[in-house]
Amino acid sequence: MLFQPHHDGSALYVDNLHPHLEETVPVRLRIPVEFGSVEKVWLRSVRDAEPHYDAADRLESAADAADSWYEAHLTIVNPVQKYRWFVQANGRTYWVNAQGVFTHDVPDAADFRLVAGSGAPEWAPSAVMYQIFVDRFARSAQADTHPTPEWAIACSWDETPVIGRGPETPYQFYGGDLDGIREKLDHLVSVGATLVYLTPMFAARSNHRYDAAAFAEVDPLLGGDDALVRLAEAIHERGLKVIGDLTTNHSGDMHEWFRASYKNPEAPESEMYYFGEGNEDYVAWLGVPSLPKFNWHSEHLRRRFVLDDDSMVARWLKPPFNLDGWRIDVGNMTGRHGYDDLNHEIAKLIRDRVTELNPDAVLLSESTSDAGPDFQGDTWHGAMTYTNFTRPAWQWLSRGEWPEPTQEQIEDAAGVNTSSLLSVSGIPVPAVQTWPDYYGVPQKGPDRIEAEQFLETHLSFIAAFPWSVRVCNMNAIDTHDTARAALAVIPGGQEVAAALQFCLPGIPLIFAGDEFGLEGFNGEASRTPMPWEDPSRILRDLRGVYRALAETRRRHPVLADGGIRWLHAEGDALIFVRESRDESVLVVATRAAVDEGLELPCAALTHGEIPREPLLTIGEGAATIVSEQSGVVRWKSSGPGVSLFSLPGVVAAK
Amino acid sequence: MLFQPHHDGSALYVDNLHPHLEETVPVRLRIPVEFGSVEKVWLRSVRDAEPHYDAADRLESAADAADSWYEAHLTIVNPVQKYRWFVQANGRTYWVNAQGVFTHDVPDAADFRLVAGSGAPEWAPSAVMYQIFVDRFARSAQADTHPTPEWAIACSWDETPVIGRGPETPYQFYGGDLDGIREKLDHLVSVGATLVYLTPMFAARSNHRYDAAAFAEVDPLLGGDDALVRLAEAIHERGLKVIGDLTTNHSGDMHEWFRASYKNPEAPESEMYYFGEGNEDYVAWLGVPSLPKFNWHSEHLRRRFVLDDDSMVARWLKPPFNLDGWRIDVGNMTGRHGYDDLNHEIAKLIRDRVTELNPDAVLLSESTSDAGPDFQGDTWHGAMTYTNFTRPAWQWLSRGEWPEPTQEQIEDAAGVNTSSLLSVSGIPVPAVQTWPDYYGVPQKGPDRIEAEQFLETHLSFIAAFPWSVRVCNMNAIDTHDTARAALAVIPGGQEVAAALQFCLPGIPLIFAGDEFGLEGFNGEASRTPMPWEDPSRILRDLRGVYRALAETRRRHPVLADGGIRWLHAEGDALIFVRESRDESVLVVATRAAVDEGLELPCAALTHGEIPREPLLTIGEGAATIVSEQSGVVRWKSSGPGVSLFSLPGVVAAK
Repeated sequence: MLFQPHHDGSALYVDNLHPHLEETVPVRLRIPVEFGSVEKVWLRSVRDAEPHYDAADRLESAADAADSWYEAHLTIVNPVQKYRWFVQANGRTYWVNAQGVFTHDVPDAADFRLVAGSGAPEWAPSAVMYQIFVDRFARSAQADTHPTPEWAIACSWDETPVIGRGPETPYQFYGGDLDGIREKLDHLVSVGATLVYLTPMFAARSNHRYDAAAFAEVDPLLGGDDALVRLAEAIHERGLKVIGDLTTNHSGDMHEWFRASYKNPEAPESEMYYFGEGNEDYVAWLGVPSLPKFNWHSEHLRRRFVLDDDSMVARWLKPPFNLDGWRIDVGNMTGRHGYDDLNHEIAKLIRDRVTELNPDAVLLSESTSDAGPDFQGDTWHGAMTYTNFTRPAWQWLSRGEWPEPTQEQIEDAAGVNTSSLLSVSGIPVPAVQTWPDYYGVPQKGPDRIEAEQFLETHLSFIAAFPWSVRVCNMNAIDTHDTARAALAVIPGGQEVAAALQFCLPGIPLIFAGDEFGLEGFNGEASRTPMPWEDPSRILRDLRGVYRALAETRRRHPVLADGGIRWLHAEGDALIFVRESRDESVLVVATRAAVDEGLELPCAALTHGEIPREPLLTIGEGAATIVSEQSGVVRWKSSGPGVSLFSLPGVVAAK
Repeated sequence: MLFQPHHDGSALYVDNLHPHLEETVPVRLRIPVEFGSVEKVWLRSVRDAEPHYDAADRLESAADAADSWYEAHLTIVNPVQKYRWFVQANGRTYWVNAQGVFTHDVPDAADFRLVAGSGAPEWAPSAVMYQIFVDRFARSAQADTHPTPEWAIACSWDETPVIGRGPETPYQFYGGDLDGIREKLDHLVSVGATLVYLTPMFAARSNHRYDAAAFAEVDPLLGGDDALVRLAEAIHERGLKVIGDLTTNHSGDMHEWFRASYKNPEAPESEMYYFGEGNEDYVAWLGVPSLPKFNWHSEHLRRRFVLDDDSMVARWLKPPFNLDGWRIDVGNMTGRHGYDDLNHEIAKLIRDRVTELNPDAVLLSESTSDAGPDFQGDTWHGAMTYTNFTRPAWQWLSRGEWPEPTQEQIEDAAGVNTSSLLSVSGIPVPAVQTWPDYYGVPQKGPDRIEAEQFLETHLSFIAAFPWSVRVCNMNAIDTHDTARAALAVIPGGQEVAAALQFCLPGIPLIFAGDEFGLEGFNGEASRTPMPWEDPSRILRDLRGVYRALAETRRRHPVLADGGIRWLHAEGDALIFVRESRDESVLVVATRAAVDEGLELPCAALTHGEIPREPLLTIGEGAATIVSEQSGVVRWKSSGPGVSLFSLPGVVAAK
């Protein structure tokens, strides 16, 4: 993996990350001198689905340069312009694509992509996102004045959600509100957040509010529209940004559009859903009747949701609310049903509308599984997905053993109405579950994998994203839809996962409670109310860890948009370097003690000095440099931990 | 690779290969007993882009069965229904997709696909296709009466095309005609052909006729419409089928539609092309001015090309011509230009029209490179592509060394106007080229790879095709657009490649002249006229090889539509088995002498006896069984060659 030809789509290698169609962009391949004897380098692009080759020129560089640089001119023939490199060297040929270097032919799926047109706002890649599940974050005094809604099961703040799964799960109601969030903004700032992501705020009949009864009004239980105005103002005053959460796949069955059309085929809203005869049967998200699915063939829906002046997409991005963008719920299923696949069209419709309203707004979208093919830079700016980072991180850091529940736990759970528990994907879930729900995959927690497999998994999913999207993907270690990482990983593993979040390309996402080491075996259980008043519920205080990571990321922008070169992935250790012309940051992550073998030739890391003193260490077992001689740097680590080292910028030929 | 869970989408594993949308289809996974201890098997499908899991049941089987079979029910939620398997066994988990068995997470790109709706006609997978480049196949007496057209450079039949590349290349004219083909049908039958594929027959201004001047009239130089009627009748009388070649990406610049609209913006035909202001500049295929590109936004074009009663697609499938389908030229680029991507829509439009006209007609399409993503079963029935078979076959069998031209060759070529030669993809092509043009990739012939890499390359490209398309892909060792395999591969390698053509899933394609061992360093040079009159131009007589392969394929339909299980891919040897309930055929291919190490446990091959006597051997060096003891069968081979062994059918649990 060392001393191989390298390109990653970052600014170090591509002169214009946002070209126009038909523009020609200089792109470069970097080949370490140690790679061998290079005969010829070609740029292969795909034009209207047909391969095309352009010869690359070798750029002039210093006689003692560590790398030779080859430059070719990529013409943007299609809006998502695919390309890769073809290298004739050492008496044979090599392909270089976003997944690595290959000595046999490879499909186009892992080609690099350069996307025509504007990308995400400039601030997005360097954001540190903080996710708030609004019912569970904080209650203002005001919240006490709201009566419990009739659908709700009132819970007291310091009580863990006990109903993990079942019909009653959405009704456990804690009553967090927007003014409560506003009162805690100092906390967000203190852990380094720069972008607040709020789960839905519209009136609904559940604690999660993904079953919106209206998209045009903030739930009065949360304080109503005025509370959102107050909150957004307070967030902006602190220099932070804030985005909302919008469901484009479905509404709630109490939504006015659905109420108007249900059993009423005459209603103009009928076309907005997939109704059967008489508008009685309808298609719903995963068959859940309270979540009727939108039919995006409907011009009516397109207008009211996206295009109208006061559409759902538009209303909240405008004054007085001024949200800085959206996270789209169930983006992957939106517009898809049977023969219908309007996903790209609708995503583009929404993207163009958001850009028109505010070019500085961000548009992120959920696509839990294999997201890359839907995130080609012309629609959503970035993905909330688990396959390229979250899952392999859990697997590499997996605790590996899931105990049977103890008698005490079973007794504690005796009050739970187990008969109402659903099964997950066919696995019956017991009242007491002691393993983490693994993203809906029917297995007891993640398999443990080695670093080699972490990297192979990561690359196989990340390769399909254009670079400009990759730096806006939400890197989460958990969310409101998953178990908490703390439950799934080895002791000290959460810090390693957190450091990887902040050091890999993508926007790190802190799910409120991560900083207190909270646990939870599935999505509902992980929505534990924040332990503001009861310090005994703070399992581990990781506020300092997140603060340090965020501060390091702020001081070293290369961690946001610098290129990435993998240097080592074996067993217990992962090493990579983020690179720009201005600076580089080397990241050494270990999950266990590594006493020997963790060594790399200095020439593979940098042309400059490697400082003995790390820039930052996370975890007491973080790697330290043991020696640096004969051109080799050697680390040891008692693990788990992560060390960051500051290196000079890359000397690019141009 | 042995004793792994297996599924391939064939009828052995899927109860209905052509289900309706919303139908539920039983699908099965086969797990050898030797694989280990299976805890649970799940079917993972992707529904509206969201993963979904169904538990599989273990089917009853005999106590001494070699495999256990697991069955799940796949619901066809989307027209191209993706699925794969998730196996919990041996204390860990495995994914099984069309690329193999993986112990880390994999993207959906290599999922199996089951496609809603009808597929290719039933006869297609068992066809043996014979490609005729009409100017070069045979001249009838009638041909002598045609004057040489004014654009043409007359060549005499037994003269090799000398102008390999350049402006004059398309004008070397040999004057083959349709009656000439009709007179040689006995030859086609004798090499086993069942499906004749004719390159374009429409009037044009080139020897290849891809620059159609009209799609509504057979070139008078070929004998006109009447000659086609005679030819099609004669073909059908022999029980063979015949398809034509239609260019949907462009017309010629002499086409009436283009003539009507060029410099004439008022013409209704204007919308059929991509014209600039004043209809003077226009978009052309790879910038070649004689091939103006169609704009498929045009309703006018859709009608006249596809939808009208007498459209180009329709006219020739109807009496009196009765063609049995089409091969579409440049299918991959059709409908694609800049921001436009109408490819899927237009392919589907043509597919639906062809099916409507004649459900027994076949629709194949050219897509030279990474074809899979465009061949999802709802458009073209099969692909003419080189990445999954042709290229890796050349690489595995590569001659590996390309000599510099001799002085004699240079002198022979002295008459060629070298100044008119173009460069290929940036490589200057000398007057005398002694290496095979490698599918437009700028390198001197194929790199030599090992069997492991052959299989990895093959699987990485083939995995994206639904099974129903895979069995209709055109497996070529060369075509009119490539160098001849004979020039690229080791001595005896053509027979090995030919046997693989006939034994792997897909329609074997004999390009006229393959049976005479003809050579040619690029597409034009490989269009050598057939050596009917001059036996000295027959380089190797391989008619018996093709006849034997075709006959074996006819007698053993498992070679057409049976499942495929790879057993061995190392260095010089490839072994796989084609399987159905009725029979199995084991294929052992070697490219060089293999004296030891070529052995497999019998249990991995069959539950029955392995006959010592092969069903067929191709090449004198084909592998023979040396011993069969202790449950192991051992071969040796002096290579290159291929042996086929007949085995009993698979005992499926159901």
